[in-house]
Amino acid sequence: MDLKSKIRVIEDFPEKGISFKDITTLIKDKDAFSQAVNLIVDDLKGMDIDYIAGPEARGFLLGTAVAYALGVGFIPVRKPGKLPGKTISHEYKLEYGSNTLEIHEDAIEKGKKVAIVDDLLATGGTVSSVAKLIESIGGEVVALEFLIELEFLNGRNKLEKYHVNSLVKYDK
Amino acid sequence: MDLKSKIRVIEDFPEKGISFKDITTLIKDKDAFSQAVNLIVDDLKGMDIDYIAGPEARGFLLGTAVAYALGVGFIPVRKPGKLPGKTISHEYKLEYGSNTLEIHEDAIEKGKKVAIVDDLLATGGTVSSVAKLIESIGGEVVALEFLIELEFLNGRNKLEKYHVNSLVKYDK
Repeated sequence: MDLKSKIRVIEDFPEKGISFKDITTLIKDKDAFSQAVNLIVDDLKGMDIDYIAGPEARGFLLGTAVAYALGVGFIPVRKPGKLPGKTISHEYKLEYGSNTLEIHEDAIEKGKKVAIVDDLLATGGTVSSVAKLIESIGGEVVALEFLIELEFLNGRNKLEKYHVNSLVKYDK
Repeated sequence: MDLKSKIRVIEDFPEKGISFKDITTLIKDKDAFSQAVNLIVDDLKGMDIDYIAGPEARGFLLGTAVAYALGVGFIPVRKPGKLPGKTISHEYKLEYGSNTLEIHEDAIEKGKKVAIVDDLLATGGTVSSVAKLIESIGGEVVALEFLIELEFLNGRNKLEKYHVNSLVKYDK
């Protein structure tokens, strides 16, 4: 199945000039959703992954299904104030303004191998922040898995030390 | 396995007097996570479910894994401004203030059978709102599945027309 054909592109969302990739049309399609999860799981097999981690909220959509299918646990990385235990925070810059993510400081035992799953690789800011949080509490980030990669934003360039995989690529 | 033993209770979060049920400790445990998903799937088998739906963000954690395991698609119900297509909104009252949820108006074809999965049944306000949204676009809500039920809040009373299932119950 051509996964790209299941993604709906909506122009000028959330603002003018942005060509938004709407994954809800893929995730509601049982065959496309299952195939996307299975392709990520296949890529991770043999890496001895202990946990899948993913950022709120769209990172939860594929991440937890991948964790289930791979037979590992899932670690949520969330917006400030959402996690009830003691947290570590990381702030990173966006094109306009900044964003902050948090992880429970006891979420990952030292040396455990973690794969990050998110819906979209754009500039790489979000996934870099998630990786920093995991590494700051002692986890080892071994793979980054994305449903979509916006290749023209060159996010992969800042992720060279990791295994990076994406299922659907856009060049504009 | 006793799923309740995997849930961490944090007192006075997000405000004084609230005994918060932290499910991150359950979801990071591969055996507990897998068991929770499988118990929900077992309850839904034979109901001929077409879609799982769940509200942002914690409803995505179990919901998408249940959808994958059951072999159906997942429909996200989101906070305002997050879904890029045409949406239907529903506002509902909280103890203090209100909350609004949205669904894509073309998310579910008429007559399709939907099960809602969320982490927590408290007063039932959120799940009732999700059910109203699904029904307003022509979906048939056939089951409500929760990881946790706070029985002392009697949320189940307002959900009598649905099949309701919860895996872990608290009476205080």
